Amino acid sequence: MVPRIVYVNGRYVPYAAARVHIDDRGYTFADGVYEVVLVSGGKLIDEGPHLDRLERSLKEMRMRLPMPRRALELVLREVIRRNRIGRGLGLVYLQMSRAVAPRDHPFPPAADTKTQFVAWAKPIPPQPRSNTEEGVKAISVPDIRWERCDIKSTALLPNVLAKQAAREAGAYEAWLVDEEGFVTEGSSTNAWIITPAGELVTRGLDSGILAGVTRRTVIALAKDEGLRFVERRFSLAEAKSAREAFVTSASSFVLPVTQIDDAVIGNGKPGSLSLALRAHYFRYMNEGQAV
Amino acid sequence: MVPRIVYVNGRYVPYAAARVHIDDRGYTFADGVYEVVLVSGGKLIDEGPHLDRLERSLKEMRMRLPMPRRALELVLREVIRRNRIGRGLGLVYLQMSRAVAPRDHPFPPAADTKTQFVAWAKPIPPQPRSNTEEGVKAISVPDIRWERCDIKSTALLPNVLAKQAAREAGAYEAWLVDEEGFVTEGSSTNAWIITPAGELVTRGLDSGILAGVTRRTVIALAKDEGLRFVERRFSLAEAKSAREAFVTSASSFVLPVTQIDDAVIGNGKPGSLSLALRAHYFRYMNEGQAV
Repeated sequence: MVPRIVYVNGRYVPYAAARVHIDDRGYTFADGVYEVVLVSGGKLIDEGPHLDRLERSLKEMRMRLPMPRRALELVLREVIRRNRIGRGLGLVYLQMSRAVAPRDHPFPPAADTKTQFVAWAKPIPPQPRSNTEEGVKAISVPDIRWERCDIKSTALLPNVLAKQAAREAGAYEAWLVDEEGFVTEGSSTNAWIITPAGELVTRGLDSGILAGVTRRTVIALAKDEGLRFVERRFSLAEAKSAREAFVTSASSFVLPVTQIDDAVIGNGKPGSLSLALRAHYFRYMNEGQAV
Repeated sequence: MVPRIVYVNGRYVPYAAARVHIDDRGYTFADGVYEVVLVSGGKLIDEGPHLDRLERSLKEMRMRLPMPRRALELVLREVIRRNRIGRGLGLVYLQMSRAVAPRDHPFPPAADTKTQFVAWAKPIPPQPRSNTEEGVKAISVPDIRWERCDIKSTALLPNVLAKQAAREAGAYEAWLVDEEGFVTEGSSTNAWIITPAGELVTRGLDSGILAGVTRRTVIALAKDEGLRFVERRFSLAEAKSAREAFVTSASSFVLPVTQIDDAVIGNGKPGSLSLALRAHYFRYMNEGQAV
């Protein structure tokens, strides 16, 4: 499934014709950032936090929004409309790169720097029922990424290689493990466990992980429900002996993990707290702010 | 200065029209590799080692050449011809990405995987005389890159940020320093020192640095000249008290470094061994194999 219409630097063009220049620094240097936002019931879920995070990534990269935020919001609505997402589930993808400029590592002169902006939307199918009924498998791989994973940049090659390793192992996700043996996050999700004592645990924010928007929402929902939540590092060994485990992301929502490498988590079925949080998240989606 | 004509997946197109699809994985995931080859006197300098390294990068990424190597060599000659490099100095740039495919982290199915290939050439001006007469300055920054810098991938964002830091400090290059205090390499060059005892030193090849083609040639030239060469790690502190320092790359050749951060190297002028190696390298260029 591909989008029908893509916004490319001011124009709405058919997907097949959606192109960027070979000297777009997103192409030559991975000198860009992106966001993926869930669309449900005609609404952009957590649009505010996603655009806040986008602005933070841009600031860390010393890039600028290509237009005022209000205009950006209108573009996102227009790509949703033109891609006929309707009331179903969809994703909006947006990518910004520093500039089109003759290839040279340093930033181009400010006068030649115009943030490039591509956005599209497409409907997404529901997750396979087996994913939610049986949970998914994760494998562990060393976290070999750079040290600024708090920036949502398009320099995603290590994530690609980790995700591919997962797929070849028949797994949904790869959990990345730092040099000290702690899980940082998944290749495109945040990683969570519920301890035998019933504590909900996810790693605290640092430069080694992305500040997930769904992560943030799930923390708020867990607190609302009175769950005991602790933000701390957990080791791969602790994860393997956890009572439950799950991942979160804008497109995975809350997805139970029932196996990590060869270790079965809990009784091998999606955990009750994980499923409860998934249900809360769906309720939250359905009550999200209107577009 | 930009190229006139760009090869894009089978077609030679004017620079302004040279575009890739927004779902080129080079753009969305930095899922690609590249090479930069010097052209001098109508010859591609060290073409063989560059294409060998390209093939190695592709293999590590589990990508394939888009065409037989002989056909690739013809494309490079055609972009040189169409860009009118003539007998002067020029660069050939080539970039390959895994595929154009709907955005999803794992590799696309093999049947949908067609290596994308862009190449261009352009004349380059001589280096500013001040660079070679006075040497250049380097700054040191922490090496925060991923752990597979032996792959010449386009995930260059950390290199961009390091090079920009150098430029803002009035420096030509940033030397990257690992957690143990050792210099790995420059943001787009290899790093070398000559010790007070007269030993020529550069870091050995490991997954933390790129196997520079110019580095390889300079090692061979140094051995031919009977210089004492040692491949080992050196610390930033050792570099600052070195007798000489320099960087190498396809576009920098051999370029003396006369200041690292606030430390003046040697007597603050380009060192005699560095200049001798630079001269040897120019002779080597001028005797390179014919295109």
